[in-house]
Amino acid sequence: MARGVAARADKRSHIDMKRRHFLTGAAGAAAAASSVFSPLAIAKNKTFNLAMVTSWPTSLDTLFGTAQYIGRAIEAATDGDVTVEVFPAGEQVGGLEVFDSVASGAFALGHTASYYYIGQNPAHAFFTAMPFGLTGMQQNAWLQSGGGVDLWNELNARSNLIAFTAGNTGGQTGGWFNKEINSPADLKGLKMRFPGLGGQVMARAGVNIQNLPGGQVYFALDRGTIDAADWVSPYDDEILKLHEAAKYYYMPSWAEPGATLGLYANLDIYKDLPADIREIIQTVARAANERMFSEYMAKNGPALQRLIDGGAEVRTFPAEVLQVLEKYTDEIQAEHAEQDKFYARVYEQWTGFRDSVRTWTNASEYRYLRYVNGDLA
Amino acid sequence: MARGVAARADKRSHIDMKRRHFLTGAAGAAAAASSVFSPLAIAKNKTFNLAMVTSWPTSLDTLFGTAQYIGRAIEAATDGDVTVEVFPAGEQVGGLEVFDSVASGAFALGHTASYYYIGQNPAHAFFTAMPFGLTGMQQNAWLQSGGGVDLWNELNARSNLIAFTAGNTGGQTGGWFNKEINSPADLKGLKMRFPGLGGQVMARAGVNIQNLPGGQVYFALDRGTIDAADWVSPYDDEILKLHEAAKYYYMPSWAEPGATLGLYANLDIYKDLPADIREIIQTVARAANERMFSEYMAKNGPALQRLIDGGAEVRTFPAEVLQVLEKYTDEIQAEHAEQDKFYARVYEQWTGFRDSVRTWTNASEYRYLRYVNGDLA
Repeated sequence: MARGVAARADKRSHIDMKRRHFLTGAAGAAAAASSVFSPLAIAKNKTFNLAMVTSWPTSLDTLFGTAQYIGRAIEAATDGDVTVEVFPAGEQVGGLEVFDSVASGAFALGHTASYYYIGQNPAHAFFTAMPFGLTGMQQNAWLQSGGGVDLWNELNARSNLIAFTAGNTGGQTGGWFNKEINSPADLKGLKMRFPGLGGQVMARAGVNIQNLPGGQVYFALDRGTIDAADWVSPYDDEILKLHEAAKYYYMPSWAEPGATLGLYANLDIYKDLPADIREIIQTVARAANERMFSEYMAKNGPALQRLIDGGAEVRTFPAEVLQVLEKYTDEIQAEHAEQDKFYARVYEQWTGFRDSVRTWTNASEYRYLRYVNGDLA
Repeated sequence: MARGVAARADKRSHIDMKRRHFLTGAAGAAAAASSVFSPLAIAKNKTFNLAMVTSWPTSLDTLFGTAQYIGRAIEAATDGDVTVEVFPAGEQVGGLEVFDSVASGAFALGHTASYYYIGQNPAHAFFTAMPFGLTGMQQNAWLQSGGGVDLWNELNARSNLIAFTAGNTGGQTGGWFNKEINSPADLKGLKMRFPGLGGQVMARAGVNIQNLPGGQVYFALDRGTIDAADWVSPYDDEILKLHEAAKYYYMPSWAEPGATLGLYANLDIYKDLPADIREIIQTVARAANERMFSEYMAKNGPALQRLIDGGAEVRTFPAEVLQVLEKYTDEIQAEHAEQDKFYARVYEQWTGFRDSVRTWTNASEYRYLRYVNGDLA
């Protein structure tokens, strides 16, 4: 973490100890005589000021709005015993410094995506999105009811962190392209903005990967510095005006079939909170997880229609292209598993869950969607 | 509501007013002198005992377990200021009496499915599941981010109720059949257990609808009293042992592509609760909504595999059969809309959302699932 970050963090304490009051003296004696003012009730009147750093600019109102919702909901549920200050990316720390800033205790809470931290351990990718992996709801099912959260806890505890699922983008898109992709050969030499493991896969397919922050994607695409860019989904892509810089909008997102965001807490600070406040933080995170998924699902339909009306041409990747990308994904997964025992353990457990949950999704929801789309015989 | 129910309800009060304490006299003066014990802090020490009746037997542990989770989570988040007693169906009131029992104020809370009450107004169906309607996540998006909750609030307020999304089954199945369904003609004369609007649709297709509670479905199917039965999805169907009484397991669920459950609160009682407790109830309901969806998604994969290993033969309804059922669904929707202005208003709003959200799901997640299933060209 940068020195400047710590200095800024020191100026404002994330848990304001001044506001912790303990009853002493005469009032304490009076309270002890009352059936209402048990020591427990007194302890409950401690107040806490928690600061939350995030990876989101305010312009991405569904992402940053989720962090704001979390803050407001915690405050409302604790009747003000907890106050939460929520900071956009760059205001206290950079958008990709959230993990380290909360791990160090400089900030109590953070809202970010686990896969931004694959540089520390590639296994972080499982807890956001994995190429050719789980859809949004399958990801929720794995994390919350399929053993995923235990593995996530184990990984985060190494950094003195605990995280809760706290947002899902749902299905994303395959990105914006200034040329059509009709075969794997069309990927070779393509200059594309593509982060994370998906970017590693694309690189293996011959793509020249450019890592650009969101704010620079439009200009790079418009000026031809890059030929293609992956961002999120219609609602957020429209905010970045990517449809004004590229013509072909490819589906589906093979790299992020559903991406989970996390509410991170410094583990020491979290353990020090009263049990009811810990419960509220957990519950709010889970509510936020669903709220964001619902928001994106409701907003992306109208946004996609606006993009199409504005000239975007929706395309589907040929199966042949996706098969090549899946082969490279499997190779990269195997290499990471060979290099790291924890990665290997997650990969094995995750693969078992993925195969099982697909049995169900493919039997039920997929067959329904086939009918809805007129593809059922 | 049956007289016996009210009598039982009177014996135990849903809000135990005895436990509301207000500080008076000397202790009050001492407290007033302290910066900690503001009148607000004192008011927060009121305690509430809320009773929750449900539509679920304990054997259906994902459904009843969701109600139990809600109770436990509210207790933990309020540090015991609220206690919640959760009753299975039949213990205080029958499984289908939950709505009326909470509306009357006999019980503060209820966990049930809106569509059990289509006899009061057919529009209740929209808020659980509609034939050929929304998938589970689309249902969440409509209710929470697409205007659905405002319409639900309007309908429930007529009965002095408020409800929150508090559970989703995800995709269900098309039911168990003792004969194959190869054409619409195979439905004629079939004796089938099928509740709700889906049952009305089936009746129009010539099915002889039998309404049986869950506990009687296995015996009726096994003895040939009925030829087919719709229940929930693999995990719950296995609990009822339906695979031992019928051979063909049809997919997908056209009648319930995703079913929302509701946490109902008596509106007067709810309004009387402190704001922080109302916030906790809302947030816990939303967390429960996702938790149940995740539970079913994680459990149904292994359960489906066990059913297949045990001899169940999975079949898909021919498109021709589903087209006939969709035609009857549209007819019934139009009739309800003609008869009831509120229904007409919901139907129009809901149809607009459905068409919009399908644009997005079909572009993104559906294309991903097609690739996963080897159906992408």
